[in-house]
Amino acid sequence: MSATPETSTDATTDATTSPAPAPVTVLGLGPMGRALASTFVAAGHPTTVWNRTEGKADELVAQGATVASTPAEAVAASELVVICVIDYAASDSILEAAGDAIKGRTLVNLTADSPDRARTAATWATERGADYLDGTILTPTVTIGTPAAVFLFSGPEALYETHRATFASLGGTATYQGADHGRAAAYDVALLDFFWTSVSGLMHAFALARKEDIAARDLAPFARGILDLLPPIMDQLAGNVDDGVYPGEDSHIISVAAGIEHVIHAADDRGMDTGVLRAARAVAQRAIDEGHGTDGIERLAEVLGRPAA
Amino acid sequence: MSATPETSTDATTDATTSPAPAPVTVLGLGPMGRALASTFVAAGHPTTVWNRTEGKADELVAQGATVASTPAEAVAASELVVICVIDYAASDSILEAAGDAIKGRTLVNLTADSPDRARTAATWATERGADYLDGTILTPTVTIGTPAAVFLFSGPEALYETHRATFASLGGTATYQGADHGRAAAYDVALLDFFWTSVSGLMHAFALARKEDIAARDLAPFARGILDLLPPIMDQLAGNVDDGVYPGEDSHIISVAAGIEHVIHAADDRGMDTGVLRAARAVAQRAIDEGHGTDGIERLAEVLGRPAA
Ligand SMILES: NC(=O)c1ccc[n+]([C@@H]2O[C@H](COP(=O)([O-])OP(=O)(O)OC[C@H]3O[C@@H](n4cnc5c(N)ncnc54)[C@H](OP(=O)(O)O)[C@@H]3O)[C@@H](O)[C@H]2O)c1
Ligand SMILES: NC(=O)c1ccc[n+]([C@@H]2O[C@H](COP(=O)([O-])OP(=O)(O)OC[C@H]3O[C@@H](n4cnc5c(N)ncnc54)[C@H](OP(=O)(O)O)[C@@H]3O)[C@@H](O)[C@H]2O)c1
Repeated sequence: MSATPETSTDATTDATTSPAPAPVTVLGLGPMGRALASTFVAAGHPTTVWNRTEGKADELVAQGATVASTPAEAVAASELVVICVIDYAASDSILEAAGDAIKGRTLVNLTADSPDRARTAATWATERGADYLDGTILTPTVTIGTPAAVFLFSGPEALYETHRATFASLGGTATYQGADHGRAAAYDVALLDFFWTSVSGLMHAFALARKEDIAARDLAPFARGILDLLPPIMDQLAGNVDDGVYPGEDSHIISVAAGIEHVIHAADDRGMDTGVLRAARAVAQRAIDEGHGTDGIERLAEVLGRPAA
Repeated sequence: MSATPETSTDATTDATTSPAPAPVTVLGLGPMGRALASTFVAAGHPTTVWNRTEGKADELVAQGATVASTPAEAVAASELVVICVIDYAASDSILEAAGDAIKGRTLVNLTADSPDRARTAATWATERGADYLDGTILTPTVTIGTPAAVFLFSGPEALYETHRATFASLGGTATYQGADHGRAAAYDVALLDFFWTSVSGLMHAFALARKEDIAARDLAPFARGILDLLPPIMDQLAGNVDDGVYPGEDSHIISVAAGIEHVIHAADDRGMDTGVLRAARAVAQRAIDEGHGTDGIERLAEVLGRPAA
């Protein structure tokens, strides 16, 4: 996949060709861990895998991966160790179980979690003699190994440079976000925030449409049209949020609140769960109560930055 | 704008050219009402306007519109009357104030509200001898008069056909959604549901990023990338919701709940309002508690269709 690795840590003695793909260990074989591991195997990396629950490695072994029976054995197998599990509580427990084996290894944690947890994990690993890079994956499993994959990394830049050829095997685009270990996770939580809130809104929209005898399939093309409204105004909204400017000439918060109210009314009428909508309505109401009702929606970013009363 | 009106209600005696643009009255001059009225004026329709608060018509009058001093006078001026105000409580009060003047008129209500309110308003107007069409506008004011505008209509099809040439003056695409007066509003509330929930998530994401010293401007390109994830999976998600099929192989609700949890943790840490996220988390938790944790996110549409316990 990666045509020309720029650096390599492998021990091949043939200096006239591109260095051979470096060995990699993947800890965690959920949907994402499996996608990463199978992409490394396909790109020619000697790949060692481990998962808490056995049996998840069978297909990978058939593809050519080696399964380790303990975290320590898995970590011992490669200088570069990629971890991708459900959260940092899980990754912490796996790394603790690996014990001294992590000394001198480069740990790349692609588990999604909050920035402070990424920083804490980095400190913990560094104190135990491991090099530590945090990363985040912004696209679903099917994108891994394709141009659509998006990865962010943060931590020591030299570490990132040393291993970027291996990361390139995963396809797509990887960007380095700086030395603060928490920075990739900071982007990640903000983007997950947007993504899961939107998906939750889409599921609620499908549910509401069905109550009105509109099939989700019939709503989908219009929902796609609704999505098209955001990219053209994204930079404008972002700039206004950064600048603390909230123009409300075209659509203001009072009007938005009325719109959300109609949706709540329709959804309540149909016996639906309206928790998310009521929470969104409450945020708009806070802005109105504070005298910002005729501001534009960018004001909501300022309101959301403060705890609810 | 509209090159070839197919039908016309105007009284021009020149039958050899396209019928002249029909007179239109616009009630309500908020941002959207003004956009509609000024587009009608630009397209050559004799346009009469009225607004509760005076002064909003000044620019329109300069463009060539006529301002009426009462709803009755405004309604009397044109056979076709377009209403676009904040909600149906407002449109009801305006139409009531117009009294007998609505008899024999065609009222086109482009005010956004819930399907049942659209149906009630239709019944009310029909009983008073008016023809009634409900409509909804799915795009912002700047799109009016451009190819990007999207309108939905529902109510008697013959009425829609009679006036579609006039609607065409507003640009974009208009689709007729059926005889049920509530149908356009049903699409509208479902799409507003998706739109405002997503925008609320975007504002929260900007706010969270800022707490981590990431400018909204720096997050915006990645947020656009996140938006790109949805269109390719939209039909699949919709089809699964329709079919009641919830495959969770690539990403299941337990993993989503963990993701939302990370965001809540990060946002709480930074003293933010986490109401929307906690409501979204509660929905995922309901699915998990009911034993559907390993289902795909489409299951949430089913859960959201039922009231929260
Ligand atoms: N799936 C996607 O499309 C996607 C996209 C972007 C980012 N991500 C991120 O990638 C990471 C992995 O996600 P995923 O999709 O593979 O599924 P996941 O359900 O988030 O994680 C499953 C993995 O976590 C392990 N695990 C859970 N609890 C554990 C514990 N206490 N100790 C040890 N291991 C434990 C599981 O092991 P068992 O098999 O033993 O349960 C399995 O390997 C997550 O942070 C996720 O947010 C996923
Ligand atoms: N703006 C957009 O981008 C957009 C996009 C799609 C759909 N829409 C829909 O279009 C409709 C109009 O929206 P808008 O943007 O023009 O602004 P809006 O704030 O929703 O509505 C303002 C209009 O409502 C009138 N109004 C409010 N309360 C009234 C009452 N009790 N009696 C009589 N009139 C009353 C206002 O009159 P006063 O001037 O006297 O207050 C003004 O004409 C809404 O349903 C909205 O959801 C708007």
